[in-house]
Amino acid sequence: MPNFYDNLRHADQKTVRGAIRSGAYQDHTAGLADGYLQANLVILEDKYALDFMRFCQRNPKPCPVVGVSDTGIPMMATLGQDIDIRTDVPSYNIYRHGRLAESCSDIKALWQNNMVAFALGCSFTFEHAILRAGFPLFHVTHNRTVPMFKTTIATVEAGPFGGPMVVSMRAIAADRLDEVQAISAQFPLAHGSPVHWGDPAAIGIDDIAAPDWGDPTPVGDDELAVFWACGVTPQAAIMRAALPLCITHKPGQMLITDISDAAETPVRVAT
Amino acid sequence: MPNFYDNLRHADQKTVRGAIRSGAYQDHTAGLADGYLQANLVILEDKYALDFMRFCQRNPKPCPVVGVSDTGIPMMATLGQDIDIRTDVPSYNIYRHGRLAESCSDIKALWQNNMVAFALGCSFTFEHAILRAGFPLFHVTHNRTVPMFKTTIATVEAGPFGGPMVVSMRAIAADRLDEVQAISAQFPLAHGSPVHWGDPAAIGIDDIAAPDWGDPTPVGDDELAVFWACGVTPQAAIMRAALPLCITHKPGQMLITDISDAAETPVRVAT
Repeated sequence: MPNFYDNLRHADQKTVRGAIRSGAYQDHTAGLADGYLQANLVILEDKYALDFMRFCQRNPKPCPVVGVSDTGIPMMATLGQDIDIRTDVPSYNIYRHGRLAESCSDIKALWQNNMVAFALGCSFTFEHAILRAGFPLFHVTHNRTVPMFKTTIATVEAGPFGGPMVVSMRAIAADRLDEVQAISAQFPLAHGSPVHWGDPAAIGIDDIAAPDWGDPTPVGDDELAVFWACGVTPQAAIMRAALPLCITHKPGQMLITDISDAAETPVRVAT
Repeated sequence: MPNFYDNLRHADQKTVRGAIRSGAYQDHTAGLADGYLQANLVILEDKYALDFMRFCQRNPKPCPVVGVSDTGIPMMATLGQDIDIRTDVPSYNIYRHGRLAESCSDIKALWQNNMVAFALGCSFTFEHAILRAGFPLFHVTHNRTVPMFKTTIATVEAGPFGGPMVVSMRAIAADRLDEVQAISAQFPLAHGSPVHWGDPAAIGIDDIAAPDWGDPTPVGDDELAVFWACGVTPQAAIMRAALPLCITHKPGQMLITDISDAAETPVRVAT
């Protein structure tokens, strides 16, 4: 729906969320609601929530928690006004026993009074800052999805959650590595500084041209492959944990919040 | 024990923790194990742990979580090697039904297999950075405790946890406010930037010379009263929640970790 996307590009975050809630827009949220924090989504039953929150605390680079609902309450009160997590994400993935069972555009029929929703920071936040600093990003320029890879970097386990860290890769001019590290380190709630740069094999990536998710990105002779912890890590951990039921956003189709990209903490001040 | 304190001043963090574990040292930890993250402690029963972790996520400036134990396991594995939370803090406060019942130097007899221990970042981290930048701090120069006040700033509630934010106050040269804001903002896991500066009455403090905890600090004519979110906030929330049993550190007598003060994330890399 290119025309509708173009219409939404300059709309404010509440208008975009309204279009998503109504079902009018069910596509990726990159470039929408500029200036507002977007978030990954994980919903699971309360009996797993404390271990999942521990897993996030122990793995803050891939899993920066920016919001948590009350048990059974589908509103993300600290992230914005009137955010209903059952309807306000474009598309949802439903995992049953660790396998993707279906995708859908709302989860009103699936929400249970024992569910807890977690919002996790997303790379869009630091990508905006990198773009503003004049770094070209291949996947943005070419309207593709950033390449993502499973690695041999182990996450720190908590209860049933663990497994490999997933990373995203961006090709960065070798003489600007320090600069991109410093910029992204300013966003601890959006994966922070890179976890690796240079030789992909050192973190278990055999073929940089064959990502596990997303589209390949070329790395030029004067560039380095730079790897950031990725928000797909918790989805991999959830699949590995094989919970009876778990709901996430569909990758790329994020929750748009009322929190400023530049906010020091992701907590809405009630007005 | 001034001589023993002086002996420990230049010891490494493991030596200090060893002296604490053995019971040889049971006093404040300010100025000890320079360069290592120190932390506030809250231990409670697992049925309250998810709500407490939500409370911390919603109030990240007063309650920055830097470590969480597994349920019933008294080791803080992500914060250091062989940290036993039952013995490795100089003194503990035991709260029963919201009231301070007793203090003690270890909690081996109180630890239960349904307990969860939380470590929360502490102001020592940003104070070190402020001192290095050449700011005099009255309570450090005069070997007193920083003044702390209950405010009219409300925390964001989670389950039984809520109530007023507690702040600490430092007198800062008015023309260096920007600088001290920028320095402390670099430490989101140690309360981050100030929550208020200037008029104490604006946040409900009637008498700046009469703190609720700690010692009064004078504010000179060319200085501003600058207020940071304080790690006593969760203790106030715990007392208000009146849990049957809750254990904290004794204020000022913190957990000393193996994590560098300058670490981007408070997670030990296993070696």
